[in-house]
Amino acid sequence: MIKVGIIGVGTVGTSVAQILKENADVISARAGVDIVVKSGVVKNLQKERGLDITLTDNVDDIINDEEIDIVVELMGGVEEPFEVVKRALKAGKSVVTANKALLAYHRYELQEIAKDKAFEFEASVAGGIPIITALRDGLSANHIESIVGIMNGTCNYMMTKMTNEGVAYDDILKESQELGYAEADPTFDVGGYDAAHKLLILASIAYGIDAKPEDILIEGIQNVTQDDISFAKEFGYAIKLLGIAKKDKNEVELRVHACLIKQEEMIAKIDGVMNGISVVGDKVGETLYYGPGAGGDATASAVVANIIDIARSGKSTPMLGFNRPMEGSQLTLKPTEKIRSKYYLRINVSDRAGVLAGLTKIFEQNDISIETMLQRPTENASANLLISTHTALEKDIQNMMNEIEQLDFVNAKPAMIRIV
Amino acid sequence: MIKVGIIGVGTVGTSVAQILKENADVISARAGVDIVVKSGVVKNLQKERGLDITLTDNVDDIINDEEIDIVVELMGGVEEPFEVVKRALKAGKSVVTANKALLAYHRYELQEIAKDKAFEFEASVAGGIPIITALRDGLSANHIESIVGIMNGTCNYMMTKMTNEGVAYDDILKESQELGYAEADPTFDVGGYDAAHKLLILASIAYGIDAKPEDILIEGIQNVTQDDISFAKEFGYAIKLLGIAKKDKNEVELRVHACLIKQEEMIAKIDGVMNGISVVGDKVGETLYYGPGAGGDATASAVVANIIDIARSGKSTPMLGFNRPMEGSQLTLKPTEKIRSKYYLRINVSDRAGVLAGLTKIFEQNDISIETMLQRPTENASANLLISTHTALEKDIQNMMNEIEQLDFVNAKPAMIRIV
Repeated sequence: MIKVGIIGVGTVGTSVAQILKENADVISARAGVDIVVKSGVVKNLQKERGLDITLTDNVDDIINDEEIDIVVELMGGVEEPFEVVKRALKAGKSVVTANKALLAYHRYELQEIAKDKAFEFEASVAGGIPIITALRDGLSANHIESIVGIMNGTCNYMMTKMTNEGVAYDDILKESQELGYAEADPTFDVGGYDAAHKLLILASIAYGIDAKPEDILIEGIQNVTQDDISFAKEFGYAIKLLGIAKKDKNEVELRVHACLIKQEEMIAKIDGVMNGISVVGDKVGETLYYGPGAGGDATASAVVANIIDIARSGKSTPMLGFNRPMEGSQLTLKPTEKIRSKYYLRINVSDRAGVLAGLTKIFEQNDISIETMLQRPTENASANLLISTHTALEKDIQNMMNEIEQLDFVNAKPAMIRIV
Repeated sequence: MIKVGIIGVGTVGTSVAQILKENADVISARAGVDIVVKSGVVKNLQKERGLDITLTDNVDDIINDEEIDIVVELMGGVEEPFEVVKRALKAGKSVVTANKALLAYHRYELQEIAKDKAFEFEASVAGGIPIITALRDGLSANHIESIVGIMNGTCNYMMTKMTNEGVAYDDILKESQELGYAEADPTFDVGGYDAAHKLLILASIAYGIDAKPEDILIEGIQNVTQDDISFAKEFGYAIKLLGIAKKDKNEVELRVHACLIKQEEMIAKIDGVMNGISVVGDKVGETLYYGPGAGGDATASAVVANIIDIARSGKSTPMLGFNRPMEGSQLTLKPTEKIRSKYYLRINVSDRAGVLAGLTKIFEQNDISIETMLQRPTENASANLLISTHTALEKDIQNMMNEIEQLDFVNAKPAMIRIV
């Protein structure tokens, strides 16, 4: 019998305990051994959780319990769980975590400490979608060319609603908060940070890039307006918050931002709170993985799959981990300014003669070529110019946007969305 | 060093050899050992293949070669590869196959012979999509409620073209044959048999159902017309050939046929030659796996993933195989007549008074309730009645269709498509 200790018995932890009990028939058969939750760590011992496991508020009760084989870390946060997971590994426990923030900052140190021990984290990216299994095992014959994913359900729900119902950003944010899809402080989701944590985990497995969130381009969806949505529709795009990892020779670009993406692309068809991750391998081409990226049971499904895997094999057998990336170790992070992309720009200008000529001259001077343009009147004798460009260099676009902002006929900082 | 022998060096076999050579850098790192193809069996030794491996036309040269660790079976057919794979396993080789027909008929016997040896078959279902890995490992915490998949790229290409371009079935079949998507005798694809082989493999893993193709409901897309497509569009459906495995208490229904499926469903959004498989687990909910279902490199990607897995572990470590299904062994195949579904019917009638009254009376007598109806005039003072029903029993629908066919105002055998 394998005994599990859960540190952090919240929504996901409760689901883990429930699944191990409710699905014990199939889980025992698959693991080849019975798996039970022995105890769990909670902050508040008074709260009723409806679980028949021993509860404690002391992490030591689990780490020092010699009967416990597998520790499941579901505390949240970064530094506190880092200490706890280190201690559990050093005490000889196998560890399963769903904690993406922990991994975004400390994955390489943890993998080094785990070495030949079991350390698994399927639930840390895209909840119930077995994307890490797919990447490590299913696609192991391939060089990975790119990973492009909808990795945050909150943002995707909001973008879908804005697109389908014409709702303004602020209104849909409020609704999402009421529905519990967005936090009271929504920055972690709508600012792209949550997606960035997941992207870093996937990119490490595929490319061995030891980057921190601070090292990569992270933007959110806060500036997307109905003008942008209508431009997107007009030209056959959807707007999505995407996490992108792309190999270009010996460099890998990592970025999270709102994107215009062609409606025919499979990833553009993923609506609502669902997640989806497209992976292009040099041999297999594109495969895509879709499912629930959050929720207690879906996340717990991935945690329990890791537990079963460890229970079966006695240790994890990761084909590819952070210390054994898919692509060897020659790859480096591409500097943001070197990213090449097509761009969509929204520029609010005074609606008077000469404006267009003045603006297009700036484009020409910066060597940026316009692909399409729409003009929409706004209040106060102004107009929004909605422009898409041919492929350009991030640095050139940023320079040009700074110049445009200074023009006397431009009323506000121009907005930009990259096109993939 | 691990040495591989390939039996059947056609398109996929050539790709397997090329991938093992071209991606040797990452493959060696992932497997922890070098993997080389030593020899291959071909029928025609004169044909130039551009590969630097030893070729032979004698299977014994591989089976009796003690240096060869892993045999890759890519011969095609059923009984001949069955004998070859059995001999290879008995000779102590690990075996990887992409042969779905072989598995559709002999998977249980082979798994019994393989026992503690390695016997893997990721490429047999949906080509490059790692669906077997996902089902066996990624979703192992779940009872599987259903598997619904687009498992045949030829049919999906044809349905997509018929929908998007209004092309008639015969014209698009001809085009598909010219493009090489469909065989000269297309029955295996358009008749649903190819999809059925794949469905049986997935259903065995999930449910342990030891059925043969002859035991289950298999229909194709040959009778789908532009009338059906336009009805589907009118009421928000797509038409797809789907393989369906669904658990209902202690029974599992297995069926392959053309389906009307709501356009909002993710599986309905998969167009062209691509494959996609939706799996519903009791805990995770719906996850979906999308990618290329055929093609040399995509299929070989899955074959090589299996080879890497075996090279790493010395043997396959299948959590779930045919002999250890996900759902235990209490499940039985549901008889076709007990299937419950909504149905769409196309009935060509003489366009005269009393016809509708006569027809609806038959529906009433058979206890089948109409949901929607469209009438479209056809040639010779006739009309097509396009009808969808509420949920009904397959047996009742079949009985009613026989009765309808006998009516004097009905001009042809009515057509039926199930709605999922």
